[in-house]
Amino acid sequence: MSDLRVAVLGVGLMGADHVHRIEARISGARVAVVNDYVTEKAEQLAAAIPGCRAIGDPLDAIADPDVDAVVLATPGPTHEKQLLACLEHGKPVLCEKPLTTDVEASLQVVRREAELGKRLIQVGFMRRFDHEYAGLKALMDSGELGRPLLLHCAHRNPSVPHNFDSSMVVRDSLVHEVDVTRFLFDEEITSIQIITPSPSPGAPDGLADPQIAILRTASGRHVDVELFVSTGVGYEVRTELVAEKGSATIGLDVGMIRKGTSGSWGGTITPGFRERFGQAYDTEIQRWVDAVRSGTNVDGPTAWDGYAAAAVCEAGVESLRSGGPVEVSMVSRESIPGA
Amino acid sequence: MSDLRVAVLGVGLMGADHVHRIEARISGARVAVVNDYVTEKAEQLAAAIPGCRAIGDPLDAIADPDVDAVVLATPGPTHEKQLLACLEHGKPVLCEKPLTTDVEASLQVVRREAELGKRLIQVGFMRRFDHEYAGLKALMDSGELGRPLLLHCAHRNPSVPHNFDSSMVVRDSLVHEVDVTRFLFDEEITSIQIITPSPSPGAPDGLADPQIAILRTASGRHVDVELFVSTGVGYEVRTELVAEKGSATIGLDVGMIRKGTSGSWGGTITPGFRERFGQAYDTEIQRWVDAVRSGTNVDGPTAWDGYAAAAVCEAGVESLRSGGPVEVSMVSRESIPGA
Amino acid sequence: MSDLRVAVLGVGLMGADHVHRIEARISGARVAVVNDYVTEKAEQLAAAIPGCRAIGDPLDAIADPDVDAVVLATPGPTHEKQLLACLEHGKPVLCEKPLTTDVEASLQVVRREAELGKRLIQVGFMRRFDHEYAGLKALMDSGELGRPLLLHCAHRNPSVPHNFDSSMVVRDSLVHEVDVTRFLFDEEITSIQIITPSPSPGAPDGLADPQIAILRTASGRHVDVELFVSTGVGYEVRTELVAEKGSATIGLDVGMIRKGTSGSWGGTITPGFRERFGQAYDTEIQRWVDAVRSGTNVDGPTAWDGYAAAAVCEAGVESLRSGGPVEVSMVSRESIPGA
Amino acid sequence: MSDLRVAVLGVGLMGADHVHRIEARISGARVAVVNDYVTEKAEQLAAAIPGCRAIGDPLDAIADPDVDAVVLATPGPTHEKQLLACLEHGKPVLCEKPLTTDVEASLQVVRREAELGKRLIQVGFMRRFDHEYAGLKALMDSGELGRPLLLHCAHRNPSVPHNFDSSMVVRDSLVHEVDVTRFLFDEEITSIQIITPSPSPGAPDGLADPQIAILRTASGRHVDVELFVSTGVGYEVRTELVAEKGSATIGLDVGMIRKGTSGSWGGTITPGFRERFGQAYDTEIQRWVDAVRSGTNVDGPTAWDGYAAAAVCEAGVESLRSGGPVEVSMVSRESIPGA
Repeated sequence: MSDLRVAVLGVGLMGADHVHRIEARISGARVAVVNDYVTEKAEQLAAAIPGCRAIGDPLDAIADPDVDAVVLATPGPTHEKQLLACLEHGKPVLCEKPLTTDVEASLQVVRREAELGKRLIQVGFMRRFDHEYAGLKALMDSGELGRPLLLHCAHRNPSVPHNFDSSMVVRDSLVHEVDVTRFLFDEEITSIQIITPSPSPGAPDGLADPQIAILRTASGRHVDVELFVSTGVGYEVRTELVAEKGSATIGLDVGMIRKGTSGSWGGTITPGFRERFGQAYDTEIQRWVDAVRSGTNVDGPTAWDGYAAAAVCEAGVESLRSGGPVEVSMVSRESIPGA
Repeated sequence: MSDLRVAVLGVGLMGADHVHRIEARISGARVAVVNDYVTEKAEQLAAAIPGCRAIGDPLDAIADPDVDAVVLATPGPTHEKQLLACLEHGKPVLCEKPLTTDVEASLQVVRREAELGKRLIQVGFMRRFDHEYAGLKALMDSGELGRPLLLHCAHRNPSVPHNFDSSMVVRDSLVHEVDVTRFLFDEEITSIQIITPSPSPGAPDGLADPQIAILRTASGRHVDVELFVSTGVGYEVRTELVAEKGSATIGLDVGMIRKGTSGSWGGTITPGFRERFGQAYDTEIQRWVDAVRSGTNVDGPTAWDGYAAAAVCEAGVESLRSGGPVEVSMVSRESIPGA
Repeated sequence: MSDLRVAVLGVGLMGADHVHRIEARISGARVAVVNDYVTEKAEQLAAAIPGCRAIGDPLDAIADPDVDAVVLATPGPTHEKQLLACLEHGKPVLCEKPLTTDVEASLQVVRREAELGKRLIQVGFMRRFDHEYAGLKALMDSGELGRPLLLHCAHRNPSVPHNFDSSMVVRDSLVHEVDVTRFLFDEEITSIQIITPSPSPGAPDGLADPQIAILRTASGRHVDVELFVSTGVGYEVRTELVAEKGSATIGLDVGMIRKGTSGSWGGTITPGFRERFGQAYDTEIQRWVDAVRSGTNVDGPTAWDGYAAAAVCEAGVESLRSGGPVEVSMVSRESIPGA
Repeated sequence: MSDLRVAVLGVGLMGADHVHRIEARISGARVAVVNDYVTEKAEQLAAAIPGCRAIGDPLDAIADPDVDAVVLATPGPTHEKQLLACLEHGKPVLCEKPLTTDVEASLQVVRREAELGKRLIQVGFMRRFDHEYAGLKALMDSGELGRPLLLHCAHRNPSVPHNFDSSMVVRDSLVHEVDVTRFLFDEEITSIQIITPSPSPGAPDGLADPQIAILRTASGRHVDVELFVSTGVGYEVRTELVAEKGSATIGLDVGMIRKGTSGSWGGTITPGFRERFGQAYDTEIQRWVDAVRSGTNVDGPTAWDGYAAAAVCEAGVESLRSGGPVEVSMVSRESIPGA
């Protein structure tokens, strides 16, 4: 199967990240086209990627016959027109949030896709793919904790740009907890209340920060969210599920913590080495592939490392017999030029 | 740049994992050849991968002109001959441990590669690529904790196969801590002592389990390792560094923990969303690429999800003004067939 | 100085606990009088305590010339009259919450004590004496985290008696967080909102459980409290302070956790053995005193334990010289009848 | 029952702590006699305690008819003579470690007590009374983790006095792990090995620090102990039990952690408020007693605090009915002079 040819529209911070991701870590896809309203940025990026072109008009990029699918990382106000173009050309599109900047326009996009009868749009709510959120969802779906009742969420940023205003806390930060709530509870949110405590002395002038949001869902569940975007501390995103028979917390920096019906708290022990070191294996192979392709020396453990390990284990087996300390016998590395 | 064509030799549990990894998650490589002494297994696997062939003789696979690089996951006793073949053909090879099953043979492989003057062999000590071990190494190299003094390690498996004997605990389990010691301390191990406490009632008959290993390095540092391979609990691999000015532990199930000179303990807070959700972004894009390539519907957040989020945020901004609860206004999903 | 002669009024669960506490663990006080509306209960208790009498009427107990101070653990509706009697007789009184069951009556008690110009009443909000709350307060007062902004609280009980109704969640459970808020923020609460999510299937019929309370203080700080009294899990009381420059959490079952300005999280390391083992020393001495007073054999470490430790250390010092294992030399315990 | 009259011999750091403890926190005992080879120190201390005398000769103190029991906190070399005097006079004695400074002398003390046929001596191994060690012992005795196999211990001090030598690490620090091992495993230690890694640059000149001790017990269990007395970090004492079916760790700063057979890790949730706040109740009552006895104002929650709580709860109950925010109605504190 040939690689998917992706056009990445908008190559600011997030779009450039996606370009790098697809080139460096994603199997089965390549970046065929990049576009940005700053033409030079797109052209520089394209020049660095074999087989990649810059196209000046986002709609041309979408229409291009050598583009199979689109990643939309352009400013929100341009999304509506670009999404409709993707739908018109039948191109699958992964759209960074927001879908559009306007509720009515979002609804039009929904209607248009529904008329086509084919799911072409995915929105970039990436938390659904985070292993902690996915684990929490799986735990809820297992039924082990009984009926889900509440979520307590915290969403903290160390700082925000100077032009950040109070409504952006809702639209850009809270929007993730909105999706988390809908994802975890699998129902719509029916009312919302934003509470504004007296602001932190460290918050930009005029910004209501922190804020507390209270969400209520169709079945009467509630979610409270602390939004605090000028903590100066770090990026902290936390969700605690409170359910009929226990609770579970992610994002605590101390692993996932569950409290169950048995009067105990804790987490799960990794069952085996594939789970524990899966990331290490992936990284090992990817770096080795990268080094070999680029013709540079591989920089992982060497044959000497293998020899040294063998020599130590040999002495260990000898000590297993004797019980006492055993000297390790090895030639000196200097005696083998190039080793 | 064209994809690296990899031959995977030996497609048992570990080799098959590597085949899947390269096909599903590694960018820039594809599995061109598979080989196994069980011919049918290799042929079945090859049939499922576009452009992949099964080759019956591992040495033929290594010599094949359409193979750029080799992953060796064959039984240890065959490694020596296969590694020498890789060196002869100038093919980079990633070799699962052990390098060879015999210290003298390992040394011959080291010498042969050194004579070629080119680093072609990497040994599969994957822990060096684990983010916790890499973080511990970076912490040590930063000098913040002063001179490294000791390591306390634990290596626990829930169970082992029935043919596992006492020396395999050393050769197959301890070997990882041997490499971890050499990697972290960056010096050779000069003596080793294996202590055998009275065995666990749950250990297989005749197996010395648990064992305690004491390693001493060239500069006089010491490492103690608990090896316990029939715990019945899970896979637990832990390393605590004790240094002049503090200690740090990985593998505790509660995140990396450091104790520093300031009389406090703790860990690091994620600085931003790219660090926190990097894995989520990768997974999001990979799943989307896979769904689009295979022609199935994408299963991530939909346009409706984007619309719903917009509607809730809109009400939130309204509540930000009023301070009270605001009902969310949305059309019903049923009113849009296909949405 | 002679011991304080205390009258404990009401010897149900809580009052009986206080009686035992004063007799077994409190220095400088003894229970001189007990009283309960179930006369037999008080008489049985008095009979078991040297020098303790049962008095049938609580007002007589308060007035008794051989009573120096009063602990009030009687039902709430009787508090007003008993408190006023204590004030009249100038007796210090420790009153379990509530002060009275009625706001106006509470105010009358406040006025009466104020008129006397002497502080005689202490209310039993014991959390102020918990080392975690005290530590959190000290951290706030140190100014290190900047201006306090929010509290997130959870108050969970495994179950409640069948007659527990929705307003008791407020009066009996939330009341503690009300005091915690006033204690930590050192200002009055000016408004309150109780939110009632759809109840847990495990909650008693008709009970609004869980509830969410939102408190607002005079300076605009906010507190949210989850109240959930039929979790089936355990007793979980948690408070997270969110402040201008960091946050701190108590009650997480993983020690006190702070997040500070430095991008790190964690806690404090015990500075010395007196802090680490202070409780152990207290317990050691108290048990030894109890055993000696009662004439039973002391059950702590024996002279033999001291001898064995000395023998092992002696061998250890020998090994310190030799580096190798040293056998411990001891006579057999059986050779010394009675040892 | 009258209070136990205790003589505290040696009122340096530890002895003075014991004097304060008995006076301030221990029920049923009082310090009747103090003694120190620095006569003035004993006399000053005695003067501050009602009914307490200083006695110049420790043997006179032991023999004094108004002394019921003895706490020995004198230097180790004087213990033998003082212990034998306690035995001679039939006085129960709590002796700080070491029992004596000489194995043979310890054995003579054991024999002498055994001949008397009455247990009079308790040695001050206070860890047996620490709730974490006691909890670990109880867990072992429950049988839930199967046969105990190993202990991993760490014993770290921030610093030691300048005259501390390598054998004192064994005699003064390791001695605690010696007793912990004997207490937890309930059997004698039969061999010991001390390993001396290259010393920390931060250790005093000539001190072998850190050290690793390996203890072997009669049944073949093993214990490894890291001893590191110049860490500069804090006081860290940790013990991990490894047993047939799981492990448990105390002293991790993150609460007691168990790993069990179920593939999970964690700890216990407090079952109720008496367990969670027992210490708080004790402290509350002790402080109240102390304040009342000394005639100072009590400094705990006041009647005003009780009134404020009642007013807020009243508003809360109103909000429970209405669902919306309710203003709290209170008189101003200033309107009540003295409140």
